[in-house]
Amino acid sequence: MIQHPSYTVEPWRLRETELNFDILGQSESVFALSNGHIGWRGNLDEGEPHGLPGSYLNGVHETRPLPYAEAGYGYPEAGQTVINVTNGKVIRLLVDDAPFDLRNGHVRDHERILDFRTGLLERRVEWESPGGRVVRVRSTRLVSLVQRSVAAICYEVEAVGADLRVVVQSELVANEALPQADDDPRVSAVLEAPLRSEEHSGRAAGAVLVHCTAVSGLRLAAAMDHQVDAPPSAQETVECFEDLARYTVTAELKAGERLRLVKYVAYGWSHARSEPAVRAQVEAALTAAAQTGWDGLAGGQRAYLDDFWERADVEVEGDAEVQQAVRFALFHVLQAGARAEGRAIPAKGLTGTGYDGHAFWDSETFVLPVLTYTAPEAAAHALRWRRDTLPMAQDRARQLGLEGAAFPWRTITGAECSGYWPAGTAAFHVGADIADAVTRYVNATGDLDFEKGVGLELLVQTARLWRSLGHHDAQGRFRVDGVTGPDEYSAVADNNVYTNLMAQHNLRSAAAVAERHADESRAYGITEEETASWRDAAEAMFIPYDEALGVHSQSESFTTHQAWDFANTSPEQYPLLLHFPYFDLYRKQVVKQADLVLAMHLRPDAFTDEQKARNFAYYEALTVRDSSLSACTQAVLAAEVGHLELAHDYLAEAALMDLDNLEHNTRDGLHTASLAGTWVALVAGLGGMREHDDTLGFTPRLPAGITRLCVNLSVRARRLRIEITADGAAYRLLEGDSLRILHNGRPVDVTSGKPVVLPVLKASSDAPPGQPPGREPARRRT
Amino acid sequence: MIQHPSYTVEPWRLRETELNFDILGQSESVFALSNGHIGWRGNLDEGEPHGLPGSYLNGVHETRPLPYAEAGYGYPEAGQTVINVTNGKVIRLLVDDAPFDLRNGHVRDHERILDFRTGLLERRVEWESPGGRVVRVRSTRLVSLVQRSVAAICYEVEAVGADLRVVVQSELVANEALPQADDDPRVSAVLEAPLRSEEHSGRAAGAVLVHCTAVSGLRLAAAMDHQVDAPPSAQETVECFEDLARYTVTAELKAGERLRLVKYVAYGWSHARSEPAVRAQVEAALTAAAQTGWDGLAGGQRAYLDDFWERADVEVEGDAEVQQAVRFALFHVLQAGARAEGRAIPAKGLTGTGYDGHAFWDSETFVLPVLTYTAPEAAAHALRWRRDTLPMAQDRARQLGLEGAAFPWRTITGAECSGYWPAGTAAFHVGADIADAVTRYVNATGDLDFEKGVGLELLVQTARLWRSLGHHDAQGRFRVDGVTGPDEYSAVADNNVYTNLMAQHNLRSAAAVAERHADESRAYGITEEETASWRDAAEAMFIPYDEALGVHSQSESFTTHQAWDFANTSPEQYPLLLHFPYFDLYRKQVVKQADLVLAMHLRPDAFTDEQKARNFAYYEALTVRDSSLSACTQAVLAAEVGHLELAHDYLAEAALMDLDNLEHNTRDGLHTASLAGTWVALVAGLGGMREHDDTLGFTPRLPAGITRLCVNLSVRARRLRIEITADGAAYRLLEGDSLRILHNGRPVDVTSGKPVVLPVLKASSDAPPGQPPGREPARRRT
Repeated sequence: MIQHPSYTVEPWRLRETELNFDILGQSESVFALSNGHIGWRGNLDEGEPHGLPGSYLNGVHETRPLPYAEAGYGYPEAGQTVINVTNGKVIRLLVDDAPFDLRNGHVRDHERILDFRTGLLERRVEWESPGGRVVRVRSTRLVSLVQRSVAAICYEVEAVGADLRVVVQSELVANEALPQADDDPRVSAVLEAPLRSEEHSGRAAGAVLVHCTAVSGLRLAAAMDHQVDAPPSAQETVECFEDLARYTVTAELKAGERLRLVKYVAYGWSHARSEPAVRAQVEAALTAAAQTGWDGLAGGQRAYLDDFWERADVEVEGDAEVQQAVRFALFHVLQAGARAEGRAIPAKGLTGTGYDGHAFWDSETFVLPVLTYTAPEAAAHALRWRRDTLPMAQDRARQLGLEGAAFPWRTITGAECSGYWPAGTAAFHVGADIADAVTRYVNATGDLDFEKGVGLELLVQTARLWRSLGHHDAQGRFRVDGVTGPDEYSAVADNNVYTNLMAQHNLRSAAAVAERHADESRAYGITEEETASWRDAAEAMFIPYDEALGVHSQSESFTTHQAWDFANTSPEQYPLLLHFPYFDLYRKQVVKQADLVLAMHLRPDAFTDEQKARNFAYYEALTVRDSSLSACTQAVLAAEVGHLELAHDYLAEAALMDLDNLEHNTRDGLHTASLAGTWVALVAGLGGMREHDDTLGFTPRLPAGITRLCVNLSVRARRLRIEITADGAAYRLLEGDSLRILHNGRPVDVTSGKPVVLPVLKASSDAPPGQPPGREPARRRT
Repeated sequence: MIQHPSYTVEPWRLRETELNFDILGQSESVFALSNGHIGWRGNLDEGEPHGLPGSYLNGVHETRPLPYAEAGYGYPEAGQTVINVTNGKVIRLLVDDAPFDLRNGHVRDHERILDFRTGLLERRVEWESPGGRVVRVRSTRLVSLVQRSVAAICYEVEAVGADLRVVVQSELVANEALPQADDDPRVSAVLEAPLRSEEHSGRAAGAVLVHCTAVSGLRLAAAMDHQVDAPPSAQETVECFEDLARYTVTAELKAGERLRLVKYVAYGWSHARSEPAVRAQVEAALTAAAQTGWDGLAGGQRAYLDDFWERADVEVEGDAEVQQAVRFALFHVLQAGARAEGRAIPAKGLTGTGYDGHAFWDSETFVLPVLTYTAPEAAAHALRWRRDTLPMAQDRARQLGLEGAAFPWRTITGAECSGYWPAGTAAFHVGADIADAVTRYVNATGDLDFEKGVGLELLVQTARLWRSLGHHDAQGRFRVDGVTGPDEYSAVADNNVYTNLMAQHNLRSAAAVAERHADESRAYGITEEETASWRDAAEAMFIPYDEALGVHSQSESFTTHQAWDFANTSPEQYPLLLHFPYFDLYRKQVVKQADLVLAMHLRPDAFTDEQKARNFAYYEALTVRDSSLSACTQAVLAAEVGHLELAHDYLAEAALMDLDNLEHNTRDGLHTASLAGTWVALVAGLGGMREHDDTLGFTPRLPAGITRLCVNLSVRARRLRIEITADGAAYRLLEGDSLRILHNGRPVDVTSGKPVVLPVLKASSDAPPGQPPGREPARRRT
């Protein structure tokens, strides 16, 4: 069992009991606050020491050229990188003559708590200065889920044991110095001083800074206001410069006396609005925040989260780490998407600069399934963002010689930013992933207005892409050649099973939805011939299968390739992409992340039970999980084929990815999709939840180490609660009309008030398949 | 019939009769002089106007970083680019007050002649200045094939019709301003001011400049000396600066009087030797040149070329353009390789900066076959250069996780400079191409010392690469997956037929040669087990064949891919790589350049006659020839399958590539491999020459438009002459012991003095296969 020494295991909160400078970056990520619009890393109030200072606004980025040693047609010329915006978190403290800096003096006591129910990050420190003065500092921070432009901090300092003078400096800081990025290509390119000052002005107890970005031409404003509760002797001043605004309050505190400061921060940005307009917008938000007040903001946060947990909580008995981790995961997934409204959900949420702040397919494939059943309005917003980017995706398709829409592999605005096409643009499955998320959302919510107004267009344009990307061969099979599936250790291969099955689903869904909304379909120029051609292509879709081995070939010919030489690969050579050339990875049987196995999760209808078991065993032996997008899917299929202990271990790996820093890069931001995967591993894995058109199916069963699993889901305006133990599964409808589900493949009607209790299956008695040496799930490795 | 309006068609020289400013760059390339060590583009003596000023020293390059939008393991970090070195060609002229600049005044007469027998570039101009003064200028230029560090110019100016004053300034110019490169990725990145001055000094009638490069750390020196023949009133001065040395002579010429200046230029460079050493080296070469004198240098040049033409001339009757072109081609191929000695033969020779001055596989596959049978010592030098770079190639193999040697896709020094691995590093066939060139050279010369001292190591290290790159599959077939063959419109495919057949040949040759030199083999650690494993791999080599279509699949699955939509591709969309993304080209049936067809040329034993005919027809319909490395090979196979008129047209396209500027980029340098391909198309195509181990076979037959073809070859210390007409082929041994050859597949002994005359086959009566619309051979398009 892995221990995470830094954080205690508690069901409803994440608590740090000592300040370990070595994991500052990781702690900043796990303690990050966000509402999907604003993101504040869990930096210390006083700014230093830090791993990576980080304040982000969803969509605020700088544009940079993408260089190529040898350029090619259709290579994107411009990249996008999330930038560190004006930091409104900073509150510095001078204790007599000593700056409050935990690297000096003596930390007598330290605690930080992220509470998943209050949504507050609390910090308590008792510190003795080098000169022997002692203060107790308590700060509480929130990024409001209710007022999306607002964040706030309640900061208290208390003189302990003796009188002393304190100076509190609350700041807005633009263009903070950032640490150098390392050579790992996964680490974001750091842009220095990206903000140009446009306006700075102070007022009574606050200030506003307006900046713009040099190339992307975005304008952003940050404003702060303060309410202070201090001894009468206290004095306050405001200073303001281009990149720094500072509110200072000085007070002499008697022993036991406190100074309390509430800081309100408001952010706004626009690519179009004028400087006065953006400035007015943040000042308005600030005024509203001050009127709501600290208690009002904190109360609103609690109410928002109470509602969320009532709809979304997952209870796990028997594995306290997983219990904590799934709530940590749900909290951060909510934070990433709650108020993104019109913007993407990046791979790291707004918790760090990893992957340049880009959004990928994992948003639709891993994050949206969670939001669809727990906070469906956030899922709808994320898909509306994709719809809004359709003009860019259609332009890209035209540039690539294709019909319909080619969504970007990685992006902030919707424009393709992938600088290596074999692992970027060629991964066309992103289109089918978006279509799948649309279908899932509509099936789960019954929201036909969304289907008509947003979903139809996304389905049609992605279906057109597939129809033009594939072709019928001499045997009439519909082939999709030369594309890249989810597994990034293969690329540019023919007939990737995942891609072809998802494309098949995409084509069928598009045809069905186009028929359902005939009037709107005509507006998109869809004819009966076109929908027929989609159905034909879907019907004839080529799915490679290796008869000799009795398994599906991840892509055509994959199973004929040389097996990776795992025996001669040392533990230090993982992740393989940092130690072996792509050409070698691509040409051998080695799998970075679930690909065929993910196909079995998302297209369960396309495989027999026997194929699932054989395929899982075959790919299990080849999958190294150099991607965080794998463990949860392996958990799902391990559970389906009956290897429940293995499923539990994979669940734990997904769950502890960031809390245990398993990939050693949590400092760059949280693995949002892996966090979502914790829920997926529990609900689709142990709960066995699958989507069969508009009916949800469950095949629940638990490993020995989990004695009870209770899941709350929102489905079609109903609230469904499933409680699973070793003895059986109880389905209970908490709200809404009766609902037909499948339990172990058989239809069951669940009606309000009357729980339906049904028996669960046993685990498989077969020995579970093995992994490549040293690539067992994290818990098994120690 | 294409007309090239700028140059007259003459058998032994290239003549330009008017100065067309629009094709200055092309003319500079076709009139370039080189000996493989020094290269001087055919710039006007006075420097301006110019297309691209160019003076090159083989191997002198600058190092530059290779940028990547997304870096990966094993990507080369440094690139290399040929640089324009100190220009020793410049001789400026002032006529009274007017600079001799052909953009001003009036050109009464202009002629330039490159004579393939004298090796001299002559220029004659009669020019009237804006002020009405008339001069006749005659310059003759050579880059010595005998004294490899030396070039020289004999420059004469004559006053016509009236007395006038002339000032002649003869210069060495470093860091010349160069025109901006355009966006075409094939055009070399131009480096500005790459030279840093180390030393400059003048002397009586000359000067020396020593520079070094900033990053690659090379030191180079250029020195000049002059002999002047002028009226007694003439005065001379020398000035010298860091980047400019100038020898000036002023004279008053009476009408009809002449000033004659001989300029000697010497070059030297080193990555190791000191500034005094390099300087002394060029001053020594200069002294020797002056001692030899102009007439001596010109005489040596003529003698060198007389010897070459005696061994190498190809006579063509019936097609005057091809007659001229093949001699132009042989002359430039000789210039590229004659004195390279220890350096590569770049794709452009030393005639321009195209492809950054890099050498590729086409050196071994297209250029060395010509040199092997015409100037075998140059072929041996080129292969010694590869041997000298083995340590780099072995390091590269280790970096890639392979055994043996991985030769670079593109390089100046031997280090991999390819910044796009799917079309670079993955094209492992370069190793087999080198091995093939070794085998060809040894078979053609019988040079067993070379085989033992150079060839063995090259064969062994390339064989080791193949053995580690491929693997035996479940059916025992030896597969080479995920590599790129010659066709750059496919990449990273499994079991490319060309690659696998060349690898098979490589493995077999290595095993045979290792056995023949058992002692030396032991020194390389070769065991009987290892050679057995090479033979086993060769025996089991997988060669994909499409039974349904009855053709070989260029790579596995290629024939199942979608056919390119030629009907909807407009003429402006060629070359396709500038208008379509790689992903689209790679996944469809479209061929940039002969690949399977090249395999049929170089491995004739691996295909039946029927397969050759069907394969040729199949790939002919898919091949767009966006590469200059295609027409000659298509000529060879067209001839073999009996389509002699088509062969003639492809021969003409290869022959006229640069003279007619068919790819619109001759300004960047000559297509050395296509030039060599002219000879290949004639000798292997119409002559039907094939190599069967150490026996040469011929299947000669002529198209209607060529009435007589006569080829001279050097084979195993013999001189063989083959004269082909419609009536038969006459084999004559001009020198050496009797030789067994094959004629139409049957052995024939050719003995000194007695020509053997044999009948030739008829052309096929079948209709020739078609090409993609608009991609017919150039002659057929007009």
